Amino acid sequence: MSRETTARLLITCADRPGIVSAVTQFLFSHGANITGLDQHSTDPEGGELFMRLEFQTPYLDLPAAALEGQFQQVVADRLDMKWRISYASRPKRIAVLVSKYEHCLMELLWRNARGELPGEIAMVVSNHPDLEQAVTAFGVPYHHVPVKGEEKTEAEAEILRLFDGGIDVVVLARYMQILSGEFLRGLENRVVNIHHSFLPAFAGGAPYKQAFDRGVKIIGATAHYVTEELDAGPIIAQDVARVCHRHNVAALKEIGRDLERRVLARAVIHHLEDRIIVHGAKTVVFDK
Amino acid sequence: MSRETTARLLITCADRPGIVSAVTQFLFSHGANITGLDQHSTDPEGGELFMRLEFQTPYLDLPAAALEGQFQQVVADRLDMKWRISYASRPKRIAVLVSKYEHCLMELLWRNARGELPGEIAMVVSNHPDLEQAVTAFGVPYHHVPVKGEEKTEAEAEILRLFDGGIDVVVLARYMQILSGEFLRGLENRVVNIHHSFLPAFAGGAPYKQAFDRGVKIIGATAHYVTEELDAGPIIAQDVARVCHRHNVAALKEIGRDLERRVLARAVIHHLEDRIIVHGAKTVVFDK
Amino acid sequence: MSRETTARLLITCADRPGIVSAVTQFLFSHGANITGLDQHSTDPEGGELFMRLEFQTPYLDLPAAALEGQFQQVVADRLDMKWRISYASRPKRIAVLVSKYEHCLMELLWRNARGELPGEIAMVVSNHPDLEQAVTAFGVPYHHVPVKGEEKTEAEAEILRLFDGGIDVVVLARYMQILSGEFLRGLENRVVNIHHSFLPAFAGGAPYKQAFDRGVKIIGATAHYVTEELDAGPIIAQDVARVCHRHNVAALKEIGRDLERRVLARAVIHHLEDRIIVHGAKTVVFDK
Amino acid sequence: MSRETTARLLITCADRPGIVSAVTQFLFSHGANITGLDQHSTDPEGGELFMRLEFQTPYLDLPAAALEGQFQQVVADRLDMKWRISYASRPKRIAVLVSKYEHCLMELLWRNARGELPGEIAMVVSNHPDLEQAVTAFGVPYHHVPVKGEEKTEAEAEILRLFDGGIDVVVLARYMQILSGEFLRGLENRVVNIHHSFLPAFAGGAPYKQAFDRGVKIIGATAHYVTEELDAGPIIAQDVARVCHRHNVAALKEIGRDLERRVLARAVIHHLEDRIIVHGAKTVVFDK
Repeated sequence: MSRETTARLLITCADRPGIVSAVTQFLFSHGANITGLDQHSTDPEGGELFMRLEFQTPYLDLPAAALEGQFQQVVADRLDMKWRISYASRPKRIAVLVSKYEHCLMELLWRNARGELPGEIAMVVSNHPDLEQAVTAFGVPYHHVPVKGEEKTEAEAEILRLFDGGIDVVVLARYMQILSGEFLRGLENRVVNIHHSFLPAFAGGAPYKQAFDRGVKIIGATAHYVTEELDAGPIIAQDVARVCHRHNVAALKEIGRDLERRVLARAVIHHLEDRIIVHGAKTVVFDK
Repeated sequence: MSRETTARLLITCADRPGIVSAVTQFLFSHGANITGLDQHSTDPEGGELFMRLEFQTPYLDLPAAALEGQFQQVVADRLDMKWRISYASRPKRIAVLVSKYEHCLMELLWRNARGELPGEIAMVVSNHPDLEQAVTAFGVPYHHVPVKGEEKTEAEAEILRLFDGGIDVVVLARYMQILSGEFLRGLENRVVNIHHSFLPAFAGGAPYKQAFDRGVKIIGATAHYVTEELDAGPIIAQDVARVCHRHNVAALKEIGRDLERRVLARAVIHHLEDRIIVHGAKTVVFDK
Repeated sequence: MSRETTARLLITCADRPGIVSAVTQFLFSHGANITGLDQHSTDPEGGELFMRLEFQTPYLDLPAAALEGQFQQVVADRLDMKWRISYASRPKRIAVLVSKYEHCLMELLWRNARGELPGEIAMVVSNHPDLEQAVTAFGVPYHHVPVKGEEKTEAEAEILRLFDGGIDVVVLARYMQILSGEFLRGLENRVVNIHHSFLPAFAGGAPYKQAFDRGVKIIGATAHYVTEELDAGPIIAQDVARVCHRHNVAALKEIGRDLERRVLARAVIHHLEDRIIVHGAKTVVFDK
Repeated sequence: MSRETTARLLITCADRPGIVSAVTQFLFSHGANITGLDQHSTDPEGGELFMRLEFQTPYLDLPAAALEGQFQQVVADRLDMKWRISYASRPKRIAVLVSKYEHCLMELLWRNARGELPGEIAMVVSNHPDLEQAVTAFGVPYHHVPVKGEEKTEAEAEILRLFDGGIDVVVLARYMQILSGEFLRGLENRVVNIHHSFLPAFAGGAPYKQAFDRGVKIIGATAHYVTEELDAGPIIAQDVARVCHRHNVAALKEIGRDLERRVLARAVIHHLEDRIIVHGAKTVVFDK
């Protein structure tokens, strides 16, 4: 089974009997070979159903576009589904936004270079010039888009110009600017942020300092989709590490850096593999 | 959705296109409402497929026995499936075998009393009389079946007499006798043991002593199905805890007790909920 | 080294050179054999020093009371120390307060019965009569002290009468009443509570529901000393478990119960072994 | 407290009363400010005592060499101690040996570049030419020392020539050659290896394949000092990750890579900070 021939179908709809049967029947009848199926129902009676199917396309009896059209007509309309199909042959293009802390960015660039990301980092954008050399050494374009004071409209416009409509997912790898609702509007559920705490604990600024002051025995990191409300978007992945009284704020930051790298990378990979369905303020993550 | 009306279908077969579709189509056409579906393929081309479906029975258009017959004829024969259906309305009956350490036994009895086990502990059998009072206090029958020296044939025969064919799963909660191949024959993949190490490390006797002597920094516990080869059966669940030079053997045992309780309880619940398919020397566990 | 002859010295003072030397020199000169020493300094220059020493008393050259008097005069006064010595030969007496959920209580009673708690549960007090039989079966006295509406003054007075000055530590094992500042006054840093969330996330009521609604991927439990401010006291121990979209509130509660049992037991044992020094809103826990 | 003025004293000796007092008294009397003290006794009566002290040197009343001489005479001789003092002002020089897998090496180089390693990577030696560019990009010398067939004597001699006596610790970052006892002789307890399994499980070759075949539910990585017996040296650090039936060997390797990076980095930092005392086949690690 080649990566090139893999397609992924994500579905959200009201749950009721017969959905799995209808979807798998449709795909089978058109020559799609289902190689993975995950589903989740909040409640079989009156709940919401989420489904992810992975299938192989080489023996489809009609072109992808036609299959999608048929699916809409034959299955989705009848069952009132929200759905989308992604094709591994068209890997997602990633823009990474970063400020000065480079650990999350480096982790992503390094995995990108190793072929561990099922997508490609198309550009890095920063409000600082500092990391240019580190990024271009990986052969990835670096754009310095300064943000002056409160006036970020211009910077955001410039970033969107750089994207030029060709970016599928935006990763905030410790980008210290708050994005406007306007900027986010066209990128709903496609902007992934790493917050350096176990949300909802220690939202906002200086979370390691907050954690130190509160005396928690475990710290964490949280990757989430960005929404207009700060640090309140749907959570994708979290991880934690034990700490104790011996760890001062600097030690928490050091431990936290490893958490942040790991959690952000995992969340980005989940997104790139179409494993996430956002439902209200939460996510369904069909983990490997 | 009542527990009483839940059924679970476990399937193993060679993978090929159309299986999910065939199974879900069959169930749907007979009024079964699929409320859960998990599947795993070792390889879509030439691999093995494992599937677990949870469905609701109230609107079946034919009795359970007839449904099973139809499934064999219409689906299973054609696709050469190994399969079985379990009904939550017939909870599994458990026999717990124990020697002198009571922590794992107590954990199970306590969960049984709280209704946390989707099954019922029908009896406790021990080669020692010590725990009788502790067990009967829970209203569970206690049978003392001593094992004299090497001669365990008689004891095993006695245990099987006590089972009287009415035991679905046997749990070895730190039972310090090795069961014969003959005893195990009729109970294949239905005898769950807890071994007090992170297998395959420290198989055999005195694993905490072995772990101490080796100086590991993490200890573990392993629940597995019992096979004739000691500590080599298919692993169901494992868990670990960090330790350090400060922990002597007694401290490892103390930490380990909590691991053993937790891992065994999890494995037993997985078994009772028909979440496990044994495949060769390994398990597929469709975790919640 | 017998448990009976073990003593523990806890010290808090301003850090400066010579403290460890002065303390160990004093103990050594009086025949105390130091078998454990932990220390922590927030900052060697101008910081706070915390120290825990474990020593053996059989060869002391003077009685315990005289040793304490000498220590005050010779060491503590000069270095302006807060300190206390505990003796394992006088195990701490525990009162457990509980409402209706019994899992944390049972865990403690069970460990108490096994001799795993280095202290003794002297009584259980509940605002409900439900758990009387379960408790007295362990040979532990059960006192039902109902709380009527908002009027808890009388109930608290009754509880203190039951304590009769002979309780060293109070454990709230899911006790659903808020204790008044007056009640807590005489029990500072001696009332241990288990909160069923990863504090400071989800303080207050229904934390599992809160966690479900927020869609976190990890849940936790927190043991802390009780202060007047709800769920804000110094944290002693925390633990976490991974969850996902498949877990509804009932499933979170089930997973959480195991966390709560484990975290509370660990915190209580830490307290009983004099491993905790409270410093402001935080704890230093000299873990084993 | 400057890093430059920190010294660390590691002690091993037979335990008996008065040791802590003697050591701290000595240091205090010479103007050393003790800022950290950890100790461990296998048994206060007839056991072994391990101690680590961190102290500040600016106010010493005599030069370091003289202090060491005095310590030997006044304390160590009398108590029959094995001891050594390290000075943070002389950071340890590291040689990394690697073959073709670069993830562990990159993690170390990256931390080295960020100043996260309290030491410095003086050179990278490989039996393959592949990683030269990746290494020299960090400004670190790369030496290609091929190993032909079984004849490794020459290669080992060449490596020792490169070390030129100026290497304090050798890190095997997935170096696929077995080092001879002769090579190891002069580097006892100074060669750190990462093994890609949870030792002692899956020693030897292809551990991820072994883990897959055994069907474990948790995989691990182990950092240990290298001894002549393969994968049997004293364990420094271990970590684990949950896996399930969905993970094939490639997926285990991917998860394992992150474990290996993390565990090796932690072990190397422990070594560089003089937190490890080897005792027989085991280690005492005075963790932060």
